[in-house]
Amino acid sequence: MIVEVIAVGTELLLGQIVNTNAAVIGAAMAERGLDAHFQQVVGDNLSRISTAIRVGLDRSDAVVITGGIGPTQDDMTREALADVTGQALVFSEEYAGQLREWWARRGREMPESNLRQAYYPEGAVMLPNPRGTAPGLMVEHEGKPIFCVPGVPAEMEHLMATEVLPRLATASGSEKVIASVLLRTWGRAESEVAELLDDLYTGSVNPSLAFLASNSEIKIRMTAKAETAAEARSLIEPMEMEVRSRLGESIFGTDEETIERVLLRLLSERGQTIGTAESMTGGLVTARLTDLPGSSAVVKGGVVAYQTELKQRLLGLPDVLGVVSEEAAVALATGARALLDVDVALSVTGSAGPDPLEKPVGTVMIGVATPEDARAREMRFTGDRDRIRAFGATAALHLARLAIVGRWWKA
Amino acid sequence: MIVEVIAVGTELLLGQIVNTNAAVIGAAMAERGLDAHFQQVVGDNLSRISTAIRVGLDRSDAVVITGGIGPTQDDMTREALADVTGQALVFSEEYAGQLREWWARRGREMPESNLRQAYYPEGAVMLPNPRGTAPGLMVEHEGKPIFCVPGVPAEMEHLMATEVLPRLATASGSEKVIASVLLRTWGRAESEVAELLDDLYTGSVNPSLAFLASNSEIKIRMTAKAETAAEARSLIEPMEMEVRSRLGESIFGTDEETIERVLLRLLSERGQTIGTAESMTGGLVTARLTDLPGSSAVVKGGVVAYQTELKQRLLGLPDVLGVVSEEAAVALATGARALLDVDVALSVTGSAGPDPLEKPVGTVMIGVATPEDARAREMRFTGDRDRIRAFGATAALHLARLAIVGRWWKA
Repeated sequence: MIVEVIAVGTELLLGQIVNTNAAVIGAAMAERGLDAHFQQVVGDNLSRISTAIRVGLDRSDAVVITGGIGPTQDDMTREALADVTGQALVFSEEYAGQLREWWARRGREMPESNLRQAYYPEGAVMLPNPRGTAPGLMVEHEGKPIFCVPGVPAEMEHLMATEVLPRLATASGSEKVIASVLLRTWGRAESEVAELLDDLYTGSVNPSLAFLASNSEIKIRMTAKAETAAEARSLIEPMEMEVRSRLGESIFGTDEETIERVLLRLLSERGQTIGTAESMTGGLVTARLTDLPGSSAVVKGGVVAYQTELKQRLLGLPDVLGVVSEEAAVALATGARALLDVDVALSVTGSAGPDPLEKPVGTVMIGVATPEDARAREMRFTGDRDRIRAFGATAALHLARLAIVGRWWKA
Repeated sequence: MIVEVIAVGTELLLGQIVNTNAAVIGAAMAERGLDAHFQQVVGDNLSRISTAIRVGLDRSDAVVITGGIGPTQDDMTREALADVTGQALVFSEEYAGQLREWWARRGREMPESNLRQAYYPEGAVMLPNPRGTAPGLMVEHEGKPIFCVPGVPAEMEHLMATEVLPRLATASGSEKVIASVLLRTWGRAESEVAELLDDLYTGSVNPSLAFLASNSEIKIRMTAKAETAAEARSLIEPMEMEVRSRLGESIFGTDEETIERVLLRLLSERGQTIGTAESMTGGLVTARLTDLPGSSAVVKGGVVAYQTELKQRLLGLPDVLGVVSEEAAVALATGARALLDVDVALSVTGSAGPDPLEKPVGTVMIGVATPEDARAREMRFTGDRDRIRAFGATAALHLARLAIVGRWWKA
């Protein structure tokens, strides 16, 4: 089944925001075996949205529209949908009641304009959106399904995953099932991973192999198509074995096992707690550690010691040490371990730029203190401030993981 | 003149890369006063590229194609252009010679496949590309210009700036310039802002007005077109005055003045420092405060007190108070102000879910302590854990801003 994604929003045409929604939906469709030949972007204009939908229906089997279903006057996807399908817009008393309740729960009065979201083209199905107030919509026209989801990424992703993609997969009646395995690695460059797997990449169609670099981690995705999920997985298996044997200990997780999950699991298994001392990363590491529900069982907290005075007074950094050195990172991790009263503490200090701090921009010192030992490691990253901070945060989580399982690096 | 950008590449449809080229071209066109009503993406397929070009010519005045003009077999934009215009592909001996020279200068032998780039539809003009080997192309069909530029961003940008945009501006016979002003608000719902500005939205074409919601902030963009930038700005001015008078103190910043920048500026002007006590947000607030270069002048640091024991031991939270109450938020902010030795401290504690913590999921208590006063405010957010954490972090930054300028809410 060929699905055309239409993103609605003048800000996309003006280049004020980048169309990440189309990429996210494209990737999710590919995983489900749904094809795409075209995508469109259209501004917030009723007749042009209608034109885009007609063009999409003409050359594709289904259309997914993202954006233009909020409460404001420039949200015109609902009207365009009514226009294209020739249906009247009708008012859902039931949904209007839900909207009023939503506002009442927040102790606020609902602006009347919100009721725009209770209109839908006659015959359309409203798709529940637990993350926001604009429901998704589904309608069929000339035998082809049209879906509308919000433009807000979190709401769009949730509705795509729970409502739209399952329905498209069913409608496509596709015999083939797609299975994929994602191996997550850290510690090798993308070009190094690519070189190690070059023959597998070049020579393979089903399963296929793809690389994805994100935030200093390299992911390898192997995807196969077959009659059944079990068959697809068995096509992947020999390739997965081969990749695992070539990449060895660089692989730290599979599928949804992010570094945060792995780290929390390792700590939980050992009955250990963790705490942080962050300087350069300013709270990013702790925010990631506390991102998962239930993290409070092992994550006790942390200190963001951004100015030197706090590093010295709260964490006991001796004032003879600079703030960007391996010694300083060890002192900060050891200090945090004592202050926070945790089993494992990690520290990040470094020079994120744009101006250098003691060391060249990109120099990052990461310290880990456990009941057994305390060591630091110097890392160097390129790129801008955001990238150096993000890469530093990821590296800290990985070095904590290695220390917890006793795989210490050389001091 | 209405210009339609078509990006060619299967990797765009699969979401393997994001279509930043379309955003870059869109922004550059807007600056030159060129309009866009639609954009398209199409895979590497001859007949589909032709279809996309025909659709573009049908509904726009000019088409700009990016991608698909490289040397490999899946580069098929040249063939599609010949197909749409009904012209034969002819071989340019002259350009073939330039290609051979390009490779010779690098001391390498040219792969024969590179000669694909010396073909062009009869009647087309080759546009020199000093940054790569694929020349741009320009051809007219039924009175409308079609441009092709490479997909490689640096080559695309250069060709757009030097060849395509000047020609489009001349062809459009317009010297129009676009100016825009962005007003940033917090504290009102999107629908509420929309209702307050309804008549301005509906009644205005030049300047036009648009809304953008992100992370509990609502932005209002006013855009005008005129002969000169000064004239465009003077068209915006009366509308800006009107919007400012209607939204009043909800407006906290203009254009690039994010809440982080505003907060750091206010503190810096007052010679004050700031620190944080985060529970629910786990470091997100501090990470945002330290995101900007130079933030270390006013941001001293923070404590992420994720487990209750740290809230009590480090920040002095009395154990008779729960952790999600206004009293607790005041105690945490006051404790952080003392421990960190800062002028202003903010605290965030709440119930982010999925399981409720003392209060229903979405309840967030934000505390601010300054030299003058210490108060807390209860906020309620809906959505999932990520959204509640992000909205809570944004709210904390805004309440700190209000407290610093003495605009305290009722205790």
